[in-house]
Amino acid sequence: MTRVISVNPTTGEELELEVEETTPEQVVAAANRAAHAARDVAARPLAWRAGLLRAMADQLEDDDAELVDLAMRETALTRPRLEGELRRTAFQLRFFADVVLEGSFLGVSIDHATDSPMGPLPDLRRVRVPLGPVAIFGSSNFPFAFSVPGGDTASALAAGCPVLIKAHPAHPATSQRAFAALARAAHAFDAPEGLLALVFGFEAGVALVEAPGVTAVGFTGSIPAGRALWARANARATPIPFYGELGSANPLVVTSAGAAERAREIGAGIAGSMTLGVGQFCTKPGLLFVPQDEPGDELVASLVNALDELTSMTMLTGGIADHFRLGAVAITGVDGNHHLVGGGAHQGTSVTAQLFEVPATLFADTSSAPLRDEWFGPLAVVIRYRSREELELALDAVSPSLTFSVFSAVKDDDAAWLLSVGQSKAGRVIVNGYPTGVGVSWSMQHGGPWPATTAPASTSVGAASIERWLRPVTYQSVPAALLPDALRDDNPLGVPQRVDGVAREVLATRLG
Amino acid sequence: MTRVISVNPTTGEELELEVEETTPEQVVAAANRAAHAARDVAARPLAWRAGLLRAMADQLEDDDAELVDLAMRETALTRPRLEGELRRTAFQLRFFADVVLEGSFLGVSIDHATDSPMGPLPDLRRVRVPLGPVAIFGSSNFPFAFSVPGGDTASALAAGCPVLIKAHPAHPATSQRAFAALARAAHAFDAPEGLLALVFGFEAGVALVEAPGVTAVGFTGSIPAGRALWARANARATPIPFYGELGSANPLVVTSAGAAERAREIGAGIAGSMTLGVGQFCTKPGLLFVPQDEPGDELVASLVNALDELTSMTMLTGGIADHFRLGAVAITGVDGNHHLVGGGAHQGTSVTAQLFEVPATLFADTSSAPLRDEWFGPLAVVIRYRSREELELALDAVSPSLTFSVFSAVKDDDAAWLLSVGQSKAGRVIVNGYPTGVGVSWSMQHGGPWPATTAPASTSVGAASIERWLRPVTYQSVPAALLPDALRDDNPLGVPQRVDGVAREVLATRLG
Repeated sequence: MTRVISVNPTTGEELELEVEETTPEQVVAAANRAAHAARDVAARPLAWRAGLLRAMADQLEDDDAELVDLAMRETALTRPRLEGELRRTAFQLRFFADVVLEGSFLGVSIDHATDSPMGPLPDLRRVRVPLGPVAIFGSSNFPFAFSVPGGDTASALAAGCPVLIKAHPAHPATSQRAFAALARAAHAFDAPEGLLALVFGFEAGVALVEAPGVTAVGFTGSIPAGRALWARANARATPIPFYGELGSANPLVVTSAGAAERAREIGAGIAGSMTLGVGQFCTKPGLLFVPQDEPGDELVASLVNALDELTSMTMLTGGIADHFRLGAVAITGVDGNHHLVGGGAHQGTSVTAQLFEVPATLFADTSSAPLRDEWFGPLAVVIRYRSREELELALDAVSPSLTFSVFSAVKDDDAAWLLSVGQSKAGRVIVNGYPTGVGVSWSMQHGGPWPATTAPASTSVGAASIERWLRPVTYQSVPAALLPDALRDDNPLGVPQRVDGVAREVLATRLG
Repeated sequence: MTRVISVNPTTGEELELEVEETTPEQVVAAANRAAHAARDVAARPLAWRAGLLRAMADQLEDDDAELVDLAMRETALTRPRLEGELRRTAFQLRFFADVVLEGSFLGVSIDHATDSPMGPLPDLRRVRVPLGPVAIFGSSNFPFAFSVPGGDTASALAAGCPVLIKAHPAHPATSQRAFAALARAAHAFDAPEGLLALVFGFEAGVALVEAPGVTAVGFTGSIPAGRALWARANARATPIPFYGELGSANPLVVTSAGAAERAREIGAGIAGSMTLGVGQFCTKPGLLFVPQDEPGDELVASLVNALDELTSMTMLTGGIADHFRLGAVAITGVDGNHHLVGGGAHQGTSVTAQLFEVPATLFADTSSAPLRDEWFGPLAVVIRYRSREELELALDAVSPSLTFSVFSAVKDDDAAWLLSVGQSKAGRVIVNGYPTGVGVSWSMQHGGPWPATTAPASTSVGAASIERWLRPVTYQSVPAALLPDALRDDNPLGVPQRVDGVAREVLATRLG
């Protein structure tokens, strides 16, 4: 039996928790309980699901002081940041309660029997049903919003799926406490045993992806870890969908006109965005394309000044800090780069911000790969371009990302083509804004082509993230008495229905 | 250089076509042309796409006599069947023109900037964009509807994606001729070079899945071929979505009350459904669960009589016929089965219908795997059950399928639970109807959990099949002048928009 250890990254102190790593057998048993609960939960009314999600939000808020204290100790993130993240997490759970009640996630379509040029068509009615138990791997950097009570959990429960959550080793005590809050709400709502499970340990994570009862995986983390688990999901006797939100270098392009208009403001803004949460955001702007001209120089100077004012920072874990330093070393080793900010040896979890500068022509060179990788933490590379051609070639060398930001002027000939490049490279394109905020809303897309995610059509934030956990079923010639409520002609649930090809005016009231 | 060979399955005659197998280098070049065309096509108006699809439908109808003659020679399918299939294919292209113009496939959502409990949210607007070039592998059994001019091609073009189609070796001449019709319509519509490509040969197929320019794959065919190509798609440096519609045994359950009500009618109906198109349907009912009682006996007798009246039939290829005979041999080798119809050696492409009968207890036994596999062709296994418990155990042993059919009486205690089992096992559940018809409509779901398909949330028929070829992008704080038309507040395209969480009444007129 191996006890789970909680590490304080600031002090290095290790605490043995009152819980053991979960064995593969225990994981399989939990997945079987979840499969059993899945049938029960799928049959419960939408209002029950919505009520459960709201109760979970309430419980998190009731427990906020204790949760934030635990998370501070385990992550070295600041109190305001963690309080804000907990508010966001509660908001997200309530948002999914709204999504459930609104009902368009069911994708209801009803075609009455009719004649067609291909002959008579029977009565056909389509609705999305829950996929089944979902395995969730939260991230190191968001102990609430992308972890136990986070978006994957909220959207899977909203879809009607039980969840089996792998506690992140960077914050096991916070995971345990947040899980207790969810479980308490579930108990109060008479949820079936098996709706929620929490597992600990590396082996348990692998077992989770391979457990026969699991029907899909949600993952937030690094490219290597994500790819390894994705390969396991594909190697199953019955492969399952794997939704991994992986790495992203997040290009940010400043046009010449944009730099001319407000160089200093943009430079300071980038410094704030790339060091937010010690740069430990999957949307941290890591590749900064800046014109090689006077306003560009001014922008870089402003960025350098802002970074130089920062003291050393504590990262989430020693392993993450080591990887960060590895990045600085790898980039330093690229001939022709200028190390603008950083340097100086640091130990343990302590690091300082790092900024490098290279010409666009060097960046476009295939031998300069370390420049283009994601380096998690407060590190960015400034890429200086002298012409649109140089910028185009350099952007061609960028891998797909979660985000693509453009800083431009009000009148700017370059904005349109940069947006079109951005659209081809990312799931979210931003004009004159920083990518690090990822709002929970109906219109958010937090995803992107491989390697930003393993599934380019999916999002892990926002209303559409519920679609990952659903599967459509068509009912053909099914008598009215046997139809699910959502598919009935009299629409007792008041959900949006497409009828004979026409989307009906929906009954939902204004949300949010 | 290897010339492509067209085989007449009825006579065995081989014809060398005026075309060579495509080399891997040619495939890569075609994919690069497609990637170039993708940007052009994505920028064209929706009305252009719809016009192109309609022109393709017109051209297929203009060329129908020649196309049907070629297909008859290559598939041994009947003239009425192929004429019907061509009508369906033209209808399908026009249906997707309607889907394009209706616009809800774009999934437009607009959230204006606002305050929220998580702080201020910027203006966020989400729309689906084309994924890029799509590789398409059509099926042997539908030379039009699931081949060159079929559903994958229609839905990918509707999504704004170029297509690269692998000609099926069972009907290369038909493929070539149908492609010429599509290309003619494309030329008349001033489509970019690279919008359409046709490739021939096994190696070309593999090269297509691996070509860097290809962004997704649509496949219809067998489990082994589909799994092999799926693994190739996953082994790429940049893995891509692979939408495979694979095998399916299609369980059909007759309840005791259903059999009591109309045993003979159901028996005769099943005979027609399982031998339609020589049983070469992915939705052929292959597992027939019939009660072990007098009405059940009568049903089976009626089924046997109807099958006994049929003469020998010609399958699509010698290889398919060999596999079919292998199935008959494998099932014959299962102790305890009764060979009710069939037997007698056949050669080449000629086969006779085959019907087997086993007790449900034998079927539920894990050693009886050949009974549960899909055997493409006019073959089915009758599974006789003596109780609900026996039926439940036998159904537990069934793999997920495209369809699940229930024949029940008007008042029938078993219908509800069987529908719920069906929903957990299949993408389409049918009451008192045969699974072999797959109507093109808004509400069709042609898919199912693995191994029925490689992607349980997708469909390969119906309006939602367009979703496979799209990827969402969110525009954040993008000035009005730079927004795509679909995302503008004044909605010049008249597409359905969700605005601030509320789905607006749509402007579409009634379709179909």
